[in-house]
Amino acid sequence: MALNAEKIKGIAFDAYGTLFDIASIDFLLEQIFDDRARQIAAQWRRKQLEYTWLRTLMGQYKDFYELTRDALYYALEATNTSADEAQVRELMQQYYHLDVYPEVRNALARLRGTYRLAILSNANPSLLERAVAYNGLDEWLDEIISADQIRQYKPVPGIYQLAEKELGLPAENLLFASSNTWDVAGATAYGLQTAWVQRRRSVMERLDVKPAVTAANLEELADMLLT
Amino acid sequence: MALNAEKIKGIAFDAYGTLFDIASIDFLLEQIFDDRARQIAAQWRRKQLEYTWLRTLMGQYKDFYELTRDALYYALEATNTSADEAQVRELMQQYYHLDVYPEVRNALARLRGTYRLAILSNANPSLLERAVAYNGLDEWLDEIISADQIRQYKPVPGIYQLAEKELGLPAENLLFASSNTWDVAGATAYGLQTAWVQRRRSVMERLDVKPAVTAANLEELADMLLT
Repeated sequence: MALNAEKIKGIAFDAYGTLFDIASIDFLLEQIFDDRARQIAAQWRRKQLEYTWLRTLMGQYKDFYELTRDALYYALEATNTSADEAQVRELMQQYYHLDVYPEVRNALARLRGTYRLAILSNANPSLLERAVAYNGLDEWLDEIISADQIRQYKPVPGIYQLAEKELGLPAENLLFASSNTWDVAGATAYGLQTAWVQRRRSVMERLDVKPAVTAANLEELADMLLT
Repeated sequence: MALNAEKIKGIAFDAYGTLFDIASIDFLLEQIFDDRARQIAAQWRRKQLEYTWLRTLMGQYKDFYELTRDALYYALEATNTSADEAQVRELMQQYYHLDVYPEVRNALARLRGTYRLAILSNANPSLLERAVAYNGLDEWLDEIISADQIRQYKPVPGIYQLAEKELGLPAENLLFASSNTWDVAGATAYGLQTAWVQRRRSVMERLDVKPAVTAANLEELADMLLT
């Protein structure tokens, strides 16, 4: 499905990897765990995702912060690494102090005049609100939409439907932008227009759906929309 | 929850990694792709799993054979590997000729006298039936139960409920055995008694449920049940 730009009235952005750069977590992991950090980071991230999917399938909701901590403990155990409570807390609190990618502020400022803007994320509201406040994004965002509202995680249809509800716009008037290929697939299958923010070389999922558009970052996406 | 062995009247086994050894697929991957085989195998397996979860969450069912082929194409693209159609077909057809682990036949034969036995798997019936026939397991299995019957994959509650329905036994009289930690978690959350078949060193998922029992293989499980 090609982009139908003139229909778009609102844009919902995924949070982690799309707006917020989790590099500072990797940096802290390296400081604490040295040459084991990469392996821990990979396992942590993988389990974090898997637990959102598995818990939704099992019907056993747990909020994103707690589930992320469970995933960290899994990663530590799987890599035979010990960490004390203070280190775990410090790692988890990094989620409150994530920087946005360099082009995000400017792109949101440009888009703000034309579109209603939102975050649509798996994270719980308090996590999102603190990361938004930390980066001073409040003034540009109309809504912060969280999976916690339906107690199910992406990519269930209900979460993309929340964007329609919270932004007060039907699917055809909404663009969803994410760097996560499976998230793009879920939103596309639901019926939103979608932009894949391909920040690094990666491969689109083979789930029989394609994003309307691919952009290297949000500046490039803003260029496409505001021409 | 501790094992309540005297209540058990039926046992449902997961298929791949629990009864059937997929090592022959890895062997064929090595023959075709040499030193890139390990990377392809890891990506293929990961995507195969992810696509069962994602498609179920998205409400976009596709059968296990086709979804597995999609995952193979993803793995080839992600590793920058080219393969012709004949090679893809050969790899996929390996699923029809998987050997059971060495102790499986004897363990099933021992359990058969006391318990109703079934396979409970994500795979489509034709895949399972051919792998069962290839290993001559037909005589020991009462039921072959497939996710295809509900068009949703593990670990949704509905799939573990199928074991009750097809074996005609309530959850408390059923043991589910799997080597896959997330599958064990799903069945435990549903309310089945569960055995984790820990064929290699691995770590239990942190999903707030624990299997009733852990066994190194099916022989050890049979020993526990038949004492």
